[in-house]
Parts: sequence; C-alpha cells; structure tokens
Amino acid sequence: MKISELSQQSGVPIPTIKFYLREGLMAPGELVKARESAYGTSHLRRLRLIRGLIQVTGASIEQVRQLLDIIQTPDQSAIEVVGRASVALSSRQAGSVPDWSGQDTAATEALLDRLGVEYMAGSANVRMLAGALDLAEQVGLPSTDEQLAAYVRAAREAARADFGRIPWEDPGEAAEWAVLGTVLYEPVLAVLRRLAHSELAGWIERDGEPGTGAGR
Amino acid sequence: MKISELSQQSGVPIPTIKFYLREGLMAPGELVKARESAYGTSHLRRLRLIRGLIQVTGASIEQVRQLLDIIQTPDQSAIEVVGRASVALSSRQAGSVPDWSGQDTAATEALLDRLGVEYMAGSANVRMLAGALDLAEQVGLPSTDEQLAAYVRAAREAARADFGRIPWEDPGEAAEWAVLGTVLYEPVLAVLRRLAHSELAGWIERDGEPGTGAGR
Repeated sequence: MKISELSQQSGVPIPTIKFYLREGLMAPGELVKARESAYGTSHLRRLRLIRGLIQVTGASIEQVRQLLDIIQTPDQSAIEVVGRASVALSSRQAGSVPDWSGQDTAATEALLDRLGVEYMAGSANVRMLAGALDLAEQVGLPSTDEQLAAYVRAAREAARADFGRIPWEDPGEAAEWAVLGTVLYEPVLAVLRRLAHSELAGWIERDGEPGTGAGR
Repeated sequence: MKISELSQQSGVPIPTIKFYLREGLMAPGELVKARESAYGTSHLRRLRLIRGLIQVTGASIEQVRQLLDIIQTPDQSAIEVVGRASVALSSRQAGSVPDWSGQDTAATEALLDRLGVEYMAGSANVRMLAGALDLAEQVGLPSTDEQLAAYVRAAREAARADFGRIPWEDPGEAAEWAVLGTVLYEPVLAVLRRLAHSELAGWIERDGEPGTGAGR
C-alpha cells in the first residue's frame, strides 16, 4: 500500500510516519517507483506498536528504539524475545513511581527468597518493589509476608492469563504482546483490585463477612 | 509535644506543618500557652497520611482535603468509611493514565456483568477500565473473557489480603489503610506481575511448559 493508505489505516499522520522512517524505527518500504514506496502489514503492525508504547507508557523515541532493537534481534525464539523484552521494560520507570535507582534491595531480596519468587538480584524490578515496600513502611502501612504471598499468587494468576494470550507461533507478534501487554494490562489489574475492594466492603456490610471466594 | 518535636518525628518541616494547619488539613493543637500548642499522635498520623498521599499519588492539596473529609465524617463504621474512601479514590486518575471522563462504558459494564463483578455503572473505576480495555483493543491486543476472569480472581485474591491487613477496630486507622493502601500497593502488585512474567518465561525455556502453579 502507499504511505497515504498506511496513514489512513493506522491513523498516524504521514509526517509522523516519515519521522519514524527517518529515525529508523520502521524498515523502509519497498521502492516501486523513483519517489514511491510500498508498505505492508508489517509496517502497519510496527506503527501500532510504536504508537501504543508512546501513548501508554509515555516512552521517548529513544526508549521505543531500545525496545524495538530487542524485538527485532534475529534468530531468537519467542520465549527468548519475551524474556528479554520483559527485562528491558523493567528498566523503565512505571508512570508516577519515583526513581528507585539508589534503592537498597537486600531486605526485598530476602523477602522474595522467603516467598519463593525468582528474580535477578539488583534488577530494576526488584529496586522498584523495594522502593514501594519501603514507602509503605515509612507511612506506617508495612506489608506482611502473608499479604505478599497472596499478591504473588495473584500476580502469577494474572501472568499465566497473559501468557495464554501470547501468539507464541510468531516471535515478532509474541514480542509485541510481551512489551505492550505488560504495560497495557497493568491499569486493568489495578482497577479490578479497586473494584474488588468495593465488592468486599459491600459483602461485609451486607453479610458481615468478606466472602470465601466460593462462587465469586 | 511541641510543633518542633512533631516536625522531628514526622520528618515534615515546621513551615509545611503550619501550612497544613492553615489549610485546615489538620486539627489545631491544644493551646497550652499564648503562642504554644501541644500536638499528639493523631497529628503525627495525620501528617503521615497527608505526606503519603502527596508522595505516592501526586495528589493536590484539594484532593487530599476531599479524602480527609471522607475519613473524618463522624458516626461511620470502619467498613462504611473504607467503602467511601475507595469510591473517592476511584475518581482520581491513576498516575500516567489518560483522562477517561468521556469514556463509553456500555461494553465494559456488559463484560463485568458476564464476569460477575459488582460495580457502580458509569463510575470512574468503570470508565478507567473501559478506557484501558479500549486502548488495548486499538493497538491490536484485545482482551478475552478468559484472561479477564483470571484477572478478576487475581484482583480478589489481592483485595482479600489487603482487607486482612486493615485494623477494623479503629475506623480512623482503617480509613487510612483504605486510602493509602489502595495506592501504595498498586505498584507492588504490578511489579510482582512483571517478575511472574520473567519466571514463566524462564520456566518455559527450561521445562518447555509454564508450570501449573503447584508448589509455586
């Protein structure tokens, strides 16, 4: 398709597409005439990914480039690319969360050991977790192992559902799911937890107990 | 205690404490001399709450005031105040999430009905959820009912653990947990989900299957 069609189908303005092409975020189209290139579904998918990353995570062009580099490294299995994308994303700061770069992680790593969670020592994810837990403790709302064990079960339940949605047969698409899905579905889980709080409060008010989860 | 001790124990500078007092975010201390007031643990707890809200949610003074109004409404049970605080928080935007105020919620409400989740039609939580799901669909990563059913189970598991931590015998403290705990533990669950993604990827790479969760 022509760049005008690519723009129409993706909803991305032509000058923006040209900017992404100049920045090397997308492969050039196939040259069909002196000043005309043809674009395909791979370009459409790439545009979708770039726009999604910028819209959802507020990523900079530079951060988008890093993630794309991982996705398009040749000769990797889908699981490899998902794993690497997951690690790369973890080095980005989540939305409004403060910068945890100097965060001490020893206590949190001991905690993750107790909970039987696998992690990379000192990684950005572990630093973020340590920072969030420290802040909770500072304001007088420390976590307990019991509470966090439930969180780990919840996180794994959600993660398994995510993996069930990944189109493993296509490493390229699998990587897009891994990158975009990680950030897109974070607010979904957060809102559902808030709804669950309201549900629980309602159940307690009506029944005097928070429900056992049976049938719920 | 004197305001200087209050400042020392809370880590909040005296001018900031005076600002909160002028803005009516804290009750005045007990007047002991012409120009000296005494402050107690309730003031310390209030400072902790205000600072936590501002630090974690980036709430404005006006938003803090609204939440405090709910918490300090007299004659409510702990469960009532937790329920109302949860609703009030839902009208705040989570971190980097866009503004969903004009969001159509019909499809999401039908979805929540199918999933058996209780909600208030058109509430800010439902709008946020609808916005997040719409965005996922727009970038080509639509959710499935099966995936979201797993998310609901995960969210309820986490919410139950949260409620297990709330000191119900003290409505004031219960409300603080409801308000601060909701926002403080969102990043904790989000990071644990990211760690679970890495775990799953590792398990698949080693064992060729994502694990059943037994013993994990």
